[in-house]
Amino acid sequence: MALSQQKSEKTQQNLFLENELTPQYAVANDVMQLFAPSNSLVCTEAKMTIETDVLIDNFLNAINTNSDIEFNSLIETFADSQVPVNPADFDTYLEYLANNVINHSIHTSSPRFIGHMTSALPCFVRPLAKLMTAMNQNVVKIETAKAFSPYERQALAMIHRLIYNFSDKFYSEHVQNSQSTLGILVSGGTAANIIALWCARNKSLGANNSFPGVEKAGLPAALDYYGYQGAVIIGSELMHFSFEKAADLLGIGTHSLIKIPTNGNNQVDLVALRQAVADCQSKNLHIIAIAGVAGTTDSGNIDSLSDIADIAQAANVHFHVDAAWGGPLIFSEQHRQKLAGIERADSVTIDGHKQLYLPMGIGMVFMREPHLAASIEKNASYTMRKGSFDLGKRALEGSRPGMALFLHAGLHLIGLKGYEFLIDAGIEKTRYMAARINAMPEFELLSEPDINLLLYRYIPQTLRDVVVKKQLTESQNQEINLFNERLQKSQRQAGRSFISRTIKRISCFEKEISVTALRAVIANPLTTKEDIDAVLNDQIQIALDLEV
Amino acid sequence: MALSQQKSEKTQQNLFLENELTPQYAVANDVMQLFAPSNSLVCTEAKMTIETDVLIDNFLNAINTNSDIEFNSLIETFADSQVPVNPADFDTYLEYLANNVINHSIHTSSPRFIGHMTSALPCFVRPLAKLMTAMNQNVVKIETAKAFSPYERQALAMIHRLIYNFSDKFYSEHVQNSQSTLGILVSGGTAANIIALWCARNKSLGANNSFPGVEKAGLPAALDYYGYQGAVIIGSELMHFSFEKAADLLGIGTHSLIKIPTNGNNQVDLVALRQAVADCQSKNLHIIAIAGVAGTTDSGNIDSLSDIADIAQAANVHFHVDAAWGGPLIFSEQHRQKLAGIERADSVTIDGHKQLYLPMGIGMVFMREPHLAASIEKNASYTMRKGSFDLGKRALEGSRPGMALFLHAGLHLIGLKGYEFLIDAGIEKTRYMAARINAMPEFELLSEPDINLLLYRYIPQTLRDVVVKKQLTESQNQEINLFNERLQKSQRQAGRSFISRTIKRISCFEKEISVTALRAVIANPLTTKEDIDAVLNDQIQIALDLEV
Repeated sequence: MALSQQKSEKTQQNLFLENELTPQYAVANDVMQLFAPSNSLVCTEAKMTIETDVLIDNFLNAINTNSDIEFNSLIETFADSQVPVNPADFDTYLEYLANNVINHSIHTSSPRFIGHMTSALPCFVRPLAKLMTAMNQNVVKIETAKAFSPYERQALAMIHRLIYNFSDKFYSEHVQNSQSTLGILVSGGTAANIIALWCARNKSLGANNSFPGVEKAGLPAALDYYGYQGAVIIGSELMHFSFEKAADLLGIGTHSLIKIPTNGNNQVDLVALRQAVADCQSKNLHIIAIAGVAGTTDSGNIDSLSDIADIAQAANVHFHVDAAWGGPLIFSEQHRQKLAGIERADSVTIDGHKQLYLPMGIGMVFMREPHLAASIEKNASYTMRKGSFDLGKRALEGSRPGMALFLHAGLHLIGLKGYEFLIDAGIEKTRYMAARINAMPEFELLSEPDINLLLYRYIPQTLRDVVVKKQLTESQNQEINLFNERLQKSQRQAGRSFISRTIKRISCFEKEISVTALRAVIANPLTTKEDIDAVLNDQIQIALDLEV
Repeated sequence: MALSQQKSEKTQQNLFLENELTPQYAVANDVMQLFAPSNSLVCTEAKMTIETDVLIDNFLNAINTNSDIEFNSLIETFADSQVPVNPADFDTYLEYLANNVINHSIHTSSPRFIGHMTSALPCFVRPLAKLMTAMNQNVVKIETAKAFSPYERQALAMIHRLIYNFSDKFYSEHVQNSQSTLGILVSGGTAANIIALWCARNKSLGANNSFPGVEKAGLPAALDYYGYQGAVIIGSELMHFSFEKAADLLGIGTHSLIKIPTNGNNQVDLVALRQAVADCQSKNLHIIAIAGVAGTTDSGNIDSLSDIADIAQAANVHFHVDAAWGGPLIFSEQHRQKLAGIERADSVTIDGHKQLYLPMGIGMVFMREPHLAASIEKNASYTMRKGSFDLGKRALEGSRPGMALFLHAGLHLIGLKGYEFLIDAGIEKTRYMAARINAMPEFELLSEPDINLLLYRYIPQTLRDVVVKKQLTESQNQEINLFNERLQKSQRQAGRSFISRTIKRISCFEKEISVTALRAVIANPLTTKEDIDAVLNDQIQIALDLEV
């Protein structure tokens, strides 16, 4: 960058002197100092950076998963609701942050935090986070994100290609064609699922002759015009709860989200799915979409996507795959066949902040047909002009940050082979954990893992015999449930290691019973087999204390 | 943090050795190196940080607004759609970034980038961006964001209090009460507006006797049950285009977004608004909400919120205020009366990434009634358990980052008085710019600024006389329009300064004519009066070249 383009230090000083308002505002100089162009070697910002980095290092190196402060006493420190009148200095605020917030936050990067889909991140995301914030691009339009718009499109196209593997010709035609949308970057998988179903609704109830389509005329008029009795979305009972949000938002109502039972392997029951489709057709209900799950939130299982694709195709219905968790299996030669059929999906959700090891806030939805997203396009005269390259015109969100930086960087700095290694390693370690659980009398494995999530439970000593003999009564099962809930809460409170819990419904003697399950998510590359043993041993120790 | 909680460097080495998969994967060691716990003094990350900081400094110190590369040649560099097979090293990637992305990004912090709502940020956001990403909290639930949940609630309560100013008792009851929702942090103002209208729809068409409400039964059934012919949202014709998205998503259709004409000051015409409400009532159309705009996107004007509150109250309709831009005027003693009536709104949208000077990705919606958001609550067994403190249960989004860090820090490090200064200074500088434009024969001011947005246009030399004499014909007006479009594009392409453009519809001889306007947004604290003069002079220079 030419020197002539830089403000000299002298000119920077003048910025403050020039400001004629300064004398009236006691805080003016302090505030202007905060906005002074950066010079990382000498200014305030350098000091802030050094102090913050110390806290970051401590935080990242922690093995414990969290402090043992009681939540009720923690919330008391955040009771004040008055905006401070005068600006605090950074040191004071950082000390406050360290003591009250950072100390009591969750060490999501701890190798023993293996209970949720949040994990350690590669180190490059930290300097890049600062770069992204410094650049403060707004990807809603090219006038606030010139290079970032095509850069984001490229990163999305790369994943689109992994999923759909269309021809070179297809990609050269669509990657940077403003009329085409191969994918949309959003804040998370929930927004991605909502957008996919929004497109499906608008496309399938679109404009026709004089009818302007559901987008303009609304759902009641659209159902009326097309002669439907109602509209539904169909998928597994284990669909993520974002589908409830979508059904509510889109106006069909959550009762029109038809949840199909699953088999013993947590996959949607295909016979029941076919039956539901036929039922809807006979009742003249419009099926907006059939959803497949590629990685259930509870246990990571993947629906039989090819079979669902067949059913959707036969019914001529939009096929959406929620691969928020499982999508990155596509990087693995060994495991990608578990996703077979995903290439037939009309839309696919994948989260970057899950198994692409990128910071929170990166959801993606991909479209097989590059013009599907035209069904949700909106324009405005001050921006998003029709025909423009502006990414905001086909999106749920408006202004949004340049999160594509992380995605593009991840694809390049970890690469296809790097992601393959991460996926394979996670699944391998999960198998290790499953084997350990099977070998330990204290635990019962609740289902064989498909990928890298695992459901199991602790069996109190006095009940181990009946469990082995499969003679557990309902009340004994309930006793085990309560024990596992206490165990999980105690483990969380102690903060040395972390496993989450969920409720699994199991059919038993023609009855549905609830099983409280411990849920492991093995996604942290730093988690070793030794850490897995340590987490299980921690649970045994806590359980022994509880059993006394 | 106790040393015993830290992994020693030796143990870190073991992490890699222990991994039995390593030999099968050529890239395993490289990838594991990226995940090695941070040690900012000696490791890879320190080098990455130093190199990235150089780019950041250059970027932040630029005066020019952007490079002059042609967009069509820029997009060619982002044509490839294959994920790289092997990981690139950071230096190579950073060099690529610098040359292809950073060099051709928009200097949103440039004091001469005064055409969009994106501006320079205070320096503390940069170290905090790194901290936030390092902590990688997921605010969807307390198990992945222990302290961050009450911390976020506190920051939102502070702004709620500025808006509504309820009693101490109210705030001590609701700030940290998991049953109450004073505000929701989202990715941006669009999501905030959508949530507000979603709540309004669900509350007003809620459960009643045996009817389960629109949330569960859907919009057609709800309209049927309540006996309405349809449902609408009413607001100014200058509402943000996120209202179109909301009307589409929520199933009422964009034709049911009723747009009321505005007066000469770009405020909703109250007579027409009252008439529209009466018309809807007489047609038996359910009014989901009446929306007021506090800072139109085009010109920053603020509707008469008190009057709209009266109309909404009389009609017993939800009153939403989109204060995404103008909301922070509440920090200013001098200007907050422009928002009078906002305290009567049922919901209010404010963007943190606009006039709170925080990074992109911070939208907020506030609710007057702490239980309004219960109308959109969703639960799930693996998380978001009913009665829990989890913030994700009443939200559009699921997983999301700890953006509250910026908001809470801004409120403390800039403070009430700091924000007041920033708001007042921006408006003061805008008045200066308006005065300059009025004094210069080259320009015509299109309307007096309400706050810190300004619409004006350049008048080519040959037409100045007729403009002054108000004898402009329609074809001459069209000529001026085309000229201003060319001027704005040339200025943007040259990249020395930036002003956006929009189209303003003006009633003239009982006819609607379109005026292409140049649009200034004076929000950058670094913008001096000298910069404003420089931007106007740059436009005159460009115009003279175009006029030849």
